Amino acid sequence: MPHRERTLMGPGPGNPYPEVIEAFSRPVLGHLDPDFIALLDETNERLRQVWRTENRLTFPVSGTGSAGMEAAFVNVVRPGDPVVIGVNGVFGERMCDVAARCGADVIRVEAPWGQPIDPQRLLDAHPSPAIIAVVHAETSTGVRNDVAPLADRPDGTLLLVDCVTSLGGIPVTVDEWRVDIAYSGTQKCLGVPPGLSPLTFSDAAVDRIVERPSSWYLDLNMIARYVTGEGARAYHHTAPISMIYALHAGLGVLLDEGLDASWARHAACGMALHQGLEAMGMELFAADTHRLPELTTVWVPEDLPDGLDDATIRRTLLDTYGIEIGGGLGEFAGRVWRIGLMGHTARQRNVTLLLGALGEVLGR
Amino acid sequence: MPHRERTLMGPGPGNPYPEVIEAFSRPVLGHLDPDFIALLDETNERLRQVWRTENRLTFPVSGTGSAGMEAAFVNVVRPGDPVVIGVNGVFGERMCDVAARCGADVIRVEAPWGQPIDPQRLLDAHPSPAIIAVVHAETSTGVRNDVAPLADRPDGTLLLVDCVTSLGGIPVTVDEWRVDIAYSGTQKCLGVPPGLSPLTFSDAAVDRIVERPSSWYLDLNMIARYVTGEGARAYHHTAPISMIYALHAGLGVLLDEGLDASWARHAACGMALHQGLEAMGMELFAADTHRLPELTTVWVPEDLPDGLDDATIRRTLLDTYGIEIGGGLGEFAGRVWRIGLMGHTARQRNVTLLLGALGEVLGR
Repeated sequence: MPHRERTLMGPGPGNPYPEVIEAFSRPVLGHLDPDFIALLDETNERLRQVWRTENRLTFPVSGTGSAGMEAAFVNVVRPGDPVVIGVNGVFGERMCDVAARCGADVIRVEAPWGQPIDPQRLLDAHPSPAIIAVVHAETSTGVRNDVAPLADRPDGTLLLVDCVTSLGGIPVTVDEWRVDIAYSGTQKCLGVPPGLSPLTFSDAAVDRIVERPSSWYLDLNMIARYVTGEGARAYHHTAPISMIYALHAGLGVLLDEGLDASWARHAACGMALHQGLEAMGMELFAADTHRLPELTTVWVPEDLPDGLDDATIRRTLLDTYGIEIGGGLGEFAGRVWRIGLMGHTARQRNVTLLLGALGEVLGR
Repeated sequence: MPHRERTLMGPGPGNPYPEVIEAFSRPVLGHLDPDFIALLDETNERLRQVWRTENRLTFPVSGTGSAGMEAAFVNVVRPGDPVVIGVNGVFGERMCDVAARCGADVIRVEAPWGQPIDPQRLLDAHPSPAIIAVVHAETSTGVRNDVAPLADRPDGTLLLVDCVTSLGGIPVTVDEWRVDIAYSGTQKCLGVPPGLSPLTFSDAAVDRIVERPSSWYLDLNMIARYVTGEGARAYHHTAPISMIYALHAGLGVLLDEGLDASWARHAACGMALHQGLEAMGMELFAADTHRLPELTTVWVPEDLPDGLDDATIRRTLLDTYGIEIGGGLGEFAGRVWRIGLMGHTARQRNVTLLLGALGEVLGR
């Protein structure tokens, strides 16, 4: 099977940092080896820096981003708990599904796809919800939802934020925003292949962990004894060693660059892409006040040359240029493209390449 | 941080095949890329060969072995279902915990640690259970439980088998044994780092999948639409691309060698280790009729030289010889060692090395 190389400009995975692929060649260690435990501890410390948190319970869940989402809800939701969830895309919908399976009384606060959710509406939806949950960066629409104003919520209400597509790409400050629970994915702005979901729980969230979550695999009561190193290191499940090497390396690249520099690089690349697409006469999809730099959504032009449509254009980009971009979801399938500039992919050269390729294919 | 190399002779992970580490350097593709889908299809076809099954729903769960266990139960257990579970070690206990969280009425069939479970007792435990579940290779004790006789169970009872430490190391024939649900882990006898859990569901098991499992991440109704390729490839969660490359490569190594040859190699190495330990005057732990070749359990000698105990000996093996072996669990902590010969680790040279190192440390 040939090894074809892609410029990964879809909604994730992005291209991994070269140092990350190198890390996969580290000799495999056992999950209780002192050298591995030291590497895991260092990984978790790097995660705390990236999350901008002091939370002790900060580690990568052994699954992709959606496993992080499930771990976030299944550990704290009790049957009948009122849970306010912002819904303006696929991942807000997914939160509702996950929370409902945990027995939550889900209170939806909706906004149209492409528009942000007004945080005041989340605060007003219920007088004392157990949880307010929102997606920071909606991967389905390219919209940023504001999180900072949710710091002013009722005492006793946990704030749960999906940072899958935001962490590393735009500012995320868990402690300053008083976020209690947040999760991310490795394959977006962290520049690591998919496979792990960084998760962080505040002390208030830890205090609310249920005694026996419906999931054994994601039960934080037990996982915490392995990952935090408090007391004896009790084995729970075998950690995915090589993926943790990869994450450790990716976080090293990110911290060496610096979070501010990474955010600025993502912002500059996103801006260049937005401007380039508009200069080609294309119309951006997401509300202009809340556009993500790391994920751009744009309407598929309606005046396409004969024989071209969403699918043929994306296939040509893939086959001729080795570029992957993403299609729209739900009612926007075939009508919107999703273009990622995440992690190592967030480079001006990739913006230039894509604009050039699109220009050639569209004849613009 | 230095890259120390280990001979991984604990209860897993074992050392990965060199081809597996090489596969991690394949360029990352998107989870909907036609090239990746082709590789995933080929991986699943290789898994069918290794499981000896025609089951269409055969794929790697995006988590470690315990995620496979959870996927096995959470998709088919309905509240109140009678579920018979064989318990003669940690992983049988874990099955009870997982099944109970799904609402099962768990019927335990116990045997002492180190002894196998009589399959007739599993068949007699309930007239018509929803599920009979057993661990094929108990990683905590080194005991093999017989699965083949469970083919003669009542119609309508699903047979669920934990093959985490058996697949690739000793004969597993899903279709011949009429196993309905089986899962494994990549880091044992498949010679791949931890991170994925190969899972297979018979058509009868597929027919019993509940409408809405408590886990979204492991919901086979949705995952099947992505992994089986029937109808449109609907995205569920982002597949762990690089780990699937690794598994694809490891299965290739195993099938190139041949299952019969792999089983014979594990058997020969296990036998050599058993004989070598006994020749040193040590006593094996597991019942002699049901010893696993890929995981040997042996009593820590009671007449140790001054200053030596379980912990110091294992630490010396690690620090001086770079060999990891495992300690005992539960009441056998400090009293039993668990020595793995799994996948790429199952080589005569490793048997020779360990026996030599143990001889030097113990002065035998």
